[in-house]
Amino acid sequence: VEDVHFRLSTITWEELGWKSLAVNLSDIAAMGGQPRYALLTLGLNDSASVEDLQTYARGLASAGREFSTIIVGGDIVASPKALFFTVALYGLVPEDGMGPPMTRSSARPGDLVAVTGELGKSAAGLRLLSGTHSASAEALAALRQAHNRPRPRVKEGFALRASGVQTALDISDGLAGDLGHVARLSHVGIRLAAQELPVHPFVREAFGEEGFGLALFGGEEYELAFTAPPRVMSLACSALGRLGTGVTVVGEVLAEPAGKVLLTRPDGSEEAIERGGYDHLRV
Amino acid sequence: VEDVHFRLSTITWEELGWKSLAVNLSDIAAMGGQPRYALLTLGLNDSASVEDLQTYARGLASAGREFSTIIVGGDIVASPKALFFTVALYGLVPEDGMGPPMTRSSARPGDLVAVTGELGKSAAGLRLLSGTHSASAEALAALRQAHNRPRPRVKEGFALRASGVQTALDISDGLAGDLGHVARLSHVGIRLAAQELPVHPFVREAFGEEGFGLALFGGEEYELAFTAPPRVMSLACSALGRLGTGVTVVGEVLAEPAGKVLLTRPDGSEEAIERGGYDHLRV
Repeated sequence: VEDVHFRLSTITWEELGWKSLAVNLSDIAAMGGQPRYALLTLGLNDSASVEDLQTYARGLASAGREFSTIIVGGDIVASPKALFFTVALYGLVPEDGMGPPMTRSSARPGDLVAVTGELGKSAAGLRLLSGTHSASAEALAALRQAHNRPRPRVKEGFALRASGVQTALDISDGLAGDLGHVARLSHVGIRLAAQELPVHPFVREAFGEEGFGLALFGGEEYELAFTAPPRVMSLACSALGRLGTGVTVVGEVLAEPAGKVLLTRPDGSEEAIERGGYDHLRV
Repeated sequence: VEDVHFRLSTITWEELGWKSLAVNLSDIAAMGGQPRYALLTLGLNDSASVEDLQTYARGLASAGREFSTIIVGGDIVASPKALFFTVALYGLVPEDGMGPPMTRSSARPGDLVAVTGELGKSAAGLRLLSGTHSASAEALAALRQAHNRPRPRVKEGFALRASGVQTALDISDGLAGDLGHVARLSHVGIRLAAQELPVHPFVREAFGEEGFGLALFGGEEYELAFTAPPRVMSLACSALGRLGTGVTVVGEVLAEPAGKVLLTRPDGSEEAIERGGYDHLRV
């Protein structure tokens, strides 16, 4: 929705098309599925010219090609007050003997907690795009790209499921917020080690200490977080390594306190993370 | 989209939920498919209270139960400027030996053209709801229901395909407009006999002569139009009869003029229908 999820002043139409599909692909990735078919609803007003929509379609098609997803149809409606794009994505988890879809409710005490890639980059990109912070040209380009043209972890999700991982999700609501969902749905506690969080180097460079908060709470981060017993975790890390995707063990699953995420600081102090993730209805 | 496709002053939340799913079920019906799973995106603002949404959900669920469709998920987003509801529906045409999905591009010269049910009721209902016309209480109730709580022709579509019908569509853009799609996509002409159009009795009662225009052009009519060679048409009419659904042969398919819909009046005069159906971007 324009001016809620994007501003036309800080994203190109090509990026908007890519991102429309990418953020949905991420949900299929989180279950270890294969994306297949997408339906697109366009709610159009005067903000979009025909040429803009052609550029949008190119971005959408390019994400479709990259992740083997066919745009099979959809609908176009007039929406004079608010430009919006809705994508519905159909995918499947094949009966390949490599386990059921990964969920958020299957974490067990003794599991390790890990995350793909590096964190804070999308939230940092948003701040840079909004003009409230500055950074080197290189950092600006990379972080802008992370925010506007995220790469969903589709093959990584598939590899995690194939490795025996049962619990995963994307961290589009922020690492802390999304692990909170796992803690509540699995009735477990989760302890994160602050010093282990893989804050993206450009985020450290441009935001210093503040970068840690972006890594912990920043939304629209299309990395995968997952939990698994140590033996499965080592297989999973190895499988991600073969894909060239970085992975970091950032914590562990506890029996208590159920439904909570704890943060351990380097000085040994521990606190429950109370601040939630993205609230979809807070505007 | 609020104030484009519905006004909260003229539809209840229960009806809105029902209609959100029903209009999509109609597209599956038009292909002779079985609806299966629906995804719902809610774009919410202050127009909708939690109680309103619970009522909406009851309407949605009630259409789901009636037409064997499961609401499997979706998304909720903030949309401060425009309340909107998007439904994506997944269905299938089983490999049952009863023919492929019906399309709009397979009409052939010599086919007859028929339509289920009676026409003009949804457009008449909209006018009555807008307060520009009046009618008897009985007509008002029936026509309001036709507009706000349409019944998609799911079992009828399935029966048509099973009877060997290859060309069908719903007439949500109006009979003339939608048959224009068939004429263009099938490269055929279509001749409609004005006196055969099944104008709904309440539409005649409340709108007199104007009712004919509502039947020919009125949108949001979730009846099915279809074409078939005479022998298949008779099987199809008989199958609809067994379902208790009325059907009327209203015209025929011609080789020429390709892409055009002609209307024959009782006095023998004939004209090409130029006026189009609903334009989705005209606001």
